[in-house]
Amino acid sequence: MAIPVLRPLSTIAYNTIRLNDSVHKAKKLVCCAPSSISNLVGSEAGVCLSVGTHLIPHPDKVEKGGEDAFFVSSHGGGVIAVADGVSGWAEKDVNPALFSCELMANASRFVEDEEVNYDPRSLIRKAHAATTSIGSATTVVAMLETNGILKIASVGDCGVRVIRKGQIIFSTSPQEHYFDCPYQLSSEAIGQTFLDATVTTVELMEEDTVVMGSDGLFDNVFDREIISIVSSCDNVSNAAMFVLLAKALANLAYNHSKDSSFESPYSQEARTQGFDVPWWKKIMGMKLTFVISSEVLDSFLQKKAERRAVVVGAMDGGDEPNGCSSRFG
Amino acid sequence: MAIPVLRPLSTIAYNTIRLNDSVHKAKKLVCCAPSSISNLVGSEAGVCLSVGTHLIPHPDKVEKGGEDAFFVSSHGGGVIAVADGVSGWAEKDVNPALFSCELMANASRFVEDEEVNYDPRSLIRKAHAATTSIGSATTVVAMLETNGILKIASVGDCGVRVIRKGQIIFSTSPQEHYFDCPYQLSSEAIGQTFLDATVTTVELMEEDTVVMGSDGLFDNVFDREIISIVSSCDNVSNAAMFVLLAKALANLAYNHSKDSSFESPYSQEARTQGFDVPWWKKIMGMKLTFVISSEVLDSFLQKKAERRAVVVGAMDGGDEPNGCSSRFG
Repeated sequence: MAIPVLRPLSTIAYNTIRLNDSVHKAKKLVCCAPSSISNLVGSEAGVCLSVGTHLIPHPDKVEKGGEDAFFVSSHGGGVIAVADGVSGWAEKDVNPALFSCELMANASRFVEDEEVNYDPRSLIRKAHAATTSIGSATTVVAMLETNGILKIASVGDCGVRVIRKGQIIFSTSPQEHYFDCPYQLSSEAIGQTFLDATVTTVELMEEDTVVMGSDGLFDNVFDREIISIVSSCDNVSNAAMFVLLAKALANLAYNHSKDSSFESPYSQEARTQGFDVPWWKKIMGMKLTFVISSEVLDSFLQKKAERRAVVVGAMDGGDEPNGCSSRFG
Repeated sequence: MAIPVLRPLSTIAYNTIRLNDSVHKAKKLVCCAPSSISNLVGSEAGVCLSVGTHLIPHPDKVEKGGEDAFFVSSHGGGVIAVADGVSGWAEKDVNPALFSCELMANASRFVEDEEVNYDPRSLIRKAHAATTSIGSATTVVAMLETNGILKIASVGDCGVRVIRKGQIIFSTSPQEHYFDCPYQLSSEAIGQTFLDATVTTVELMEEDTVVMGSDGLFDNVFDREIISIVSSCDNVSNAAMFVLLAKALANLAYNHSKDSSFESPYSQEARTQGFDVPWWKKIMGMKLTFVISSEVLDSFLQKKAERRAVVVGAMDGGDEPNGCSSRFG
């Protein structure tokens, strides 16, 4: 349960605000990429991402679909983004999923906007400004240019790892006010904005694997475990593999979060900072798990620019035919 | 002692090759930035770095000045670079400092080259191609554009941290073939090249602090300690402060390397990877220490473009009036 940043004396009646139908529909449209559209062809030549996604909501939050949202777009070389609703809002009778889902819905709506100009920080700015739900969320947006440059903007503790030849060559760094209170885009003026985003780029090469996730992944799974899982798929390179990869990472995070004897990155960090990890947090697996894994298909160094951009998106919704529809149930 | 990558059957007589005088002089020119030139004014308007540097060679290597080399330039918004000679070459009767120092000398020579075009990977390419010494080195080059974007190219395990408001918002990731054998630019064909560099950028803001160092810093000092030392200087902002900051970081790394009871990031990583750290490595402090600390003076967000770029370089050579002259003694 991440801690929300609130105005201490806010008088807003949080529990009276609900999304209207039109917003609900927009989110349905955005937050899923069912396997039936797993062979999208992008509109531009150059490098591109092959993407697999997987989401495991916290068991207590399955009904509401969990607090994580994401979107995948084939615009440019490919766009992937995750937002994680700050769970502490539940104590104010606010569904923490609403803000993150609307944020991603809006990001998807503006991804090709001229003002955004294929800049992830501008996309965060526009999406945040358009979000009317009460709540807050951490987010990371990554946009691949067709020349192989991955541009990343991040607010809070969602993260990205780039794995090349069996090692992590790039990591984002989480931002937090203090332990377990991440920077967050918020409905409240006291929250962070696009101006607080850390903006980085990394030049990708052919066969690089990009792993993006909420803190539920990186708090429960060590980088060396991510490397190990990604490396085990080194010789396979098709769309289905990335779904399996995302699933394997999400499952590992989930299993670790349920294992009270596992010394996770989260519990190690807590101890380093002088906190003892509450037993209920370990046992109940409070951390959500969401992960996108992707690989660059074409090498900009090899100038395979004649190939078309391809983005493959797949969400494994388990028994649910459309993962998103259940997330707002 | 990092492990060099060698051609297993190489027949080169390593111990017969020495730098000639002209190269020696070029390196003297480059690898020092004595405090007397601590108020260089750059040639371009926009953001810039204020820089402090400090070097503590390994006690056994003081005579040769250690194996680390660096250069600081006021070109553009400011350029800082570190190279760390791979110490394993000493076993082949090759002074490990020669390659790293010549590499930095050449990088300094080409920093304003048109072909380099203010691109750190191109600078590594040209500097490496011009380096004739036998040996190998890890290196990192960071070039600040006057719009606040810090461009970084890195081969091996030299590193960069960017600290903003008491937290690390950007880290480079080390590259290695296996534990303690980093990627390295080499005189041997089997080594890495500019093509293996990890290339990243990070958008800096006013008051960000950039810490660059060899593995001697990051293997001995935890990120939380770097944050703590940088934060202790938060209210001071002058050129001398950055020298003190670099000195404090280098001293901490040195003291940790001499403290056989200290569980360093290096020994923790070794244990994680299944190695036991040799007692002699702990006791003798094999890791060298070199650090550059710097801060962005102007904010590109606040458009203080009327200010001139300022780069301050200072090397504390201890009792030696010119740190560099002693490094090739």
